[in-house]
Amino acid sequence: MSEKISKAVIKRLPRYYRYLTLLKEKGIERVSSKELSEMLKSTASQVRQDFNNFGGFGQQGYGYKVADLLSEIERILGLGTEYKTIVVGSGSIGQAIAKHSGFGKSGFVLKAMFDSDPSIIGSKFNDIEVSDYKTLDKYLSNNKIDIAYICVGLKEAQTVAEQLDKGGVKAVFNFAPTDLKLSDNVIVKNVHLVEELFYLSYYLNGEAR
Amino acid sequence: MSEKISKAVIKRLPRYYRYLTLLKEKGIERVSSKELSEMLKSTASQVRQDFNNFGGFGQQGYGYKVADLLSEIERILGLGTEYKTIVVGSGSIGQAIAKHSGFGKSGFVLKAMFDSDPSIIGSKFNDIEVSDYKTLDKYLSNNKIDIAYICVGLKEAQTVAEQLDKGGVKAVFNFAPTDLKLSDNVIVKNVHLVEELFYLSYYLNGEAR
Repeated sequence: MSEKISKAVIKRLPRYYRYLTLLKEKGIERVSSKELSEMLKSTASQVRQDFNNFGGFGQQGYGYKVADLLSEIERILGLGTEYKTIVVGSGSIGQAIAKHSGFGKSGFVLKAMFDSDPSIIGSKFNDIEVSDYKTLDKYLSNNKIDIAYICVGLKEAQTVAEQLDKGGVKAVFNFAPTDLKLSDNVIVKNVHLVEELFYLSYYLNGEAR
Repeated sequence: MSEKISKAVIKRLPRYYRYLTLLKEKGIERVSSKELSEMLKSTASQVRQDFNNFGGFGQQGYGYKVADLLSEIERILGLGTEYKTIVVGSGSIGQAIAKHSGFGKSGFVLKAMFDSDPSIIGSKFNDIEVSDYKTLDKYLSNNKIDIAYICVGLKEAQTVAEQLDKGGVKAVFNFAPTDLKLSDNVIVKNVHLVEELFYLSYYLNGEAR
């Protein structure tokens, strides 16, 4: 089943998945490439080309079966399973992550939160109590964690990331404004919001104008 | 001065800017392409090639002047100016944005927050009081806003975005899990965290394994 799908197509699959989930929730069973392309602000031929990569469930004039597409994208992306996640750094970004309803609903289940600030330790967010950061190593040796959200400051991020790496965490979602150096065992996804703003600035006031 | 710089280079400039700012804060005046490439986990030749795009301040053996590079990148990205921003939807993500120290420090100054929930209206985050969402139109007609953070739910996002568009907001940073349809007057930057998790899933449990 390992037909090689290009990275560009893989990157579009989460968006397809999001819209198909909405259609399913509305009880819609079939969708045409044209309808999908309008939701995605893409083109119908792009949609057809993408779906041809994995079988092509569409029939001319009948559209695609929403359920079939969903389960195929689920398989490719490895969804439909439960991922265990933790938040390290339980300030405002960590709290927003903990309260984010979309994560748990999609199978990314928050198991623990950590912080070193005594005024935050013991607080509860979305039913998860914040633990003392000092207990992180021990927690990781007792619990298999898939994904950690790094929400600590610039200076602590690398140390925390190495701890997570050693503790067997498989992927980190890094909100700290720095690039982490980790072993190849860990997948890193950066969310650098200030840099995104700088990029917007280029269009608002920079040379792009 | 409108030498056309490629989009790929522009996308790397915010990261250069971040590291150069750190060097400046440490009082470092010169940096070599090799040192920079190590921070960025890039290559020295990539760094030299990028900087050659806008003048090439480096001299063999002397490295680059940090201050010169910073001011040149500032000019290209349109930084060093003040952007007026607002948060629409003052739940946990909106609050995290309001409290984010990096935004204000970089010139993205929060001016107002809005929400429709009576239990949130009147609360203060980072000294900004949350206003009633009903007053948003009036606020926009009296205030020139550059960037709005859309932190409302999926169902409200499009309506809010159209209001912002009509109200003269020039760019939106969209945290709602939907693609907005707006006029060409508005630049949209999406931050779809759940989709980023789906993409991680592909590497953890999907076909990439």
